[in-house]
Amino acid sequence: AEFRVAVLTVSDTVASGAGPDRSGPRAVSVINFASEKLGGARVVKTTVVPDNVSEIKDVLQRWSDIDKIDLIVTLGGTGFTPRDVTPEATKELIERETPGLLFVMMQESLKVTPSAMLSRSAAGIRGSTLIINMPGNPNAVAECIEALMPALKHALKQIKGDKREKHPRHI
Amino acid sequence: AEFRVAVLTVSDTVASGAGPDRSGPRAVSVINFASEKLGGARVVKTTVVPDNVSEIKDVLQRWSDIDKIDLIVTLGGTGFTPRDVTPEATKELIERETPGLLFVMMQESLKVTPSAMLSRSAAGIRGSTLIINMPGNPNAVAECIEALMPALKHALKQIKGDKREKHPRHI
Amino acid sequence: AEFRVAVLTVSDTVASGAGPDRSGPRAVSVINFASEKLGGARVVKTTVVPDNVSEIKDVLQRWSDIDKIDLIVTLGGTGFTPRDVTPEATKELIERETPGLLFVMMQESLKVTPSAMLSRSAAGIRGSTLIINMPGNPNAVAECIEALMPALKHALKQIKGDKREKHPRHI
Ligand code: NA
Repeated sequence: AEFRVAVLTVSDTVASGAGPDRSGPRAVSVINFASEKLGGARVVKTTVVPDNVSEIKDVLQRWSDIDKIDLIVTLGGTGFTPRDVTPEATKELIERETPGLLFVMMQESLKVTPSAMLSRSAAGIRGSTLIINMPGNPNAVAECIEALMPALKHALKQIKGDKREKHPRHI
Repeated sequence: AEFRVAVLTVSDTVASGAGPDRSGPRAVSVINFASEKLGGARVVKTTVVPDNVSEIKDVLQRWSDIDKIDLIVTLGGTGFTPRDVTPEATKELIERETPGLLFVMMQESLKVTPSAMLSRSAAGIRGSTLIINMPGNPNAVAECIEALMPALKHALKQIKGDKREKHPRHI
Repeated sequence: AEFRVAVLTVSDTVASGAGPDRSGPRAVSVINFASEKLGGARVVKTTVVPDNVSEIKDVLQRWSDIDKIDLIVTLGGTGFTPRDVTPEATKELIERETPGLLFVMMQESLKVTPSAMLSRSAAGIRGSTLIINMPGNPNAVAECIEALMPALKHALKQIKGDKREKHPRHI
């Protein structure tokens, strides 16, 4: 695979074994199905952690700094409940924010449902890894990836420093 | 009331007695009129402070930490003039940002007027209190609350940790 | 000129002499052509720096604090490549963020091309200077300025503390 993707499910329920992971497998299948459009992206790692800042940070840091994953998608923990802390964990690790990705995910999700406004997702670059928070709802994951599709391949190429990607239309 | 709301008018003019508070009473009436849609929200406190960071912070902190208000709406101080510092005061107190609320308020306000782009509003959660900045213009307040209406009840329930609210469509 | 504008081109290629500055002259002509709509804005300074945080910061700080420029527009360095650090340099200097300007630039740019989502532009106020990042693509610059046009004059007047500008429609 040209781009190595990892999917992190953040959920107390799933991590404790009290319920199945419905979002993770859905995200994996959406990404692998779109592999070609995404410049040859393949999911190479998945795991589950509870809604806990330091456990989330540990995985994100290991996948970025040691495993050199190209794209990390987190699922869940982006809402308003006291346990929803995925964006806070993510923001502590991001070196360069990517607000345009958040804009597009929000804009498109709001066309599906007004409760999309309750997503507090963060996104950004750490080293050569792009980290994007997505909601835990399985349909939302598919919609968010769909929203990013037209530019995600360019994003991943740029992060790797591909010179041909330096001046597409709008950078 | 299931949800206790407080409205903070931020204005040098009003605080000094040089002019009437037109936004505060408007916000109170909009919120109380929509009480049912907002899950039983009622305004239980209102006050006025000048455009001063520490005075704004003092009220926000007391209302959040001591009075355990569910929703604080601030009015005014969100523009570009040197005295407009409500977002800066708010951001110092917010523990978890809620960018989707800002997105929706901006998106809807821009449909009314391009000068909506001059709002610098912040929003987020402190403990179990949701704090939302709105512009001082009385019509803008009504439009912003209207924009948030479809999801604000869910937001307030989630902050209180309501498990039934944990997985609506897009969290 | 009532408003003094400065244009900073951020580009390793241009700074090293390896290529011409296509965005800078385009931005100057767009701004000067719209001078009247912008309340009498004129470009009074332009320069070029490489994609280097401290060199970008040095110019922004001198133009804000010493030259008292009203509006600084930066061009380029807003993408995802490892050298794109204009937003990071800008955010270190901004005292008050202006997210509505970013919202409008993103919303309008996305109507032209989905790769607009790869802009990581920042914008905000330092003292009495408004600093806005724009992409390096010459057409993008024109589109971004066009998007801001309906409210940019008001923004600049507000920053100078013009009382008549304190309460347009949505502040
Ligand atoms: Na929009």
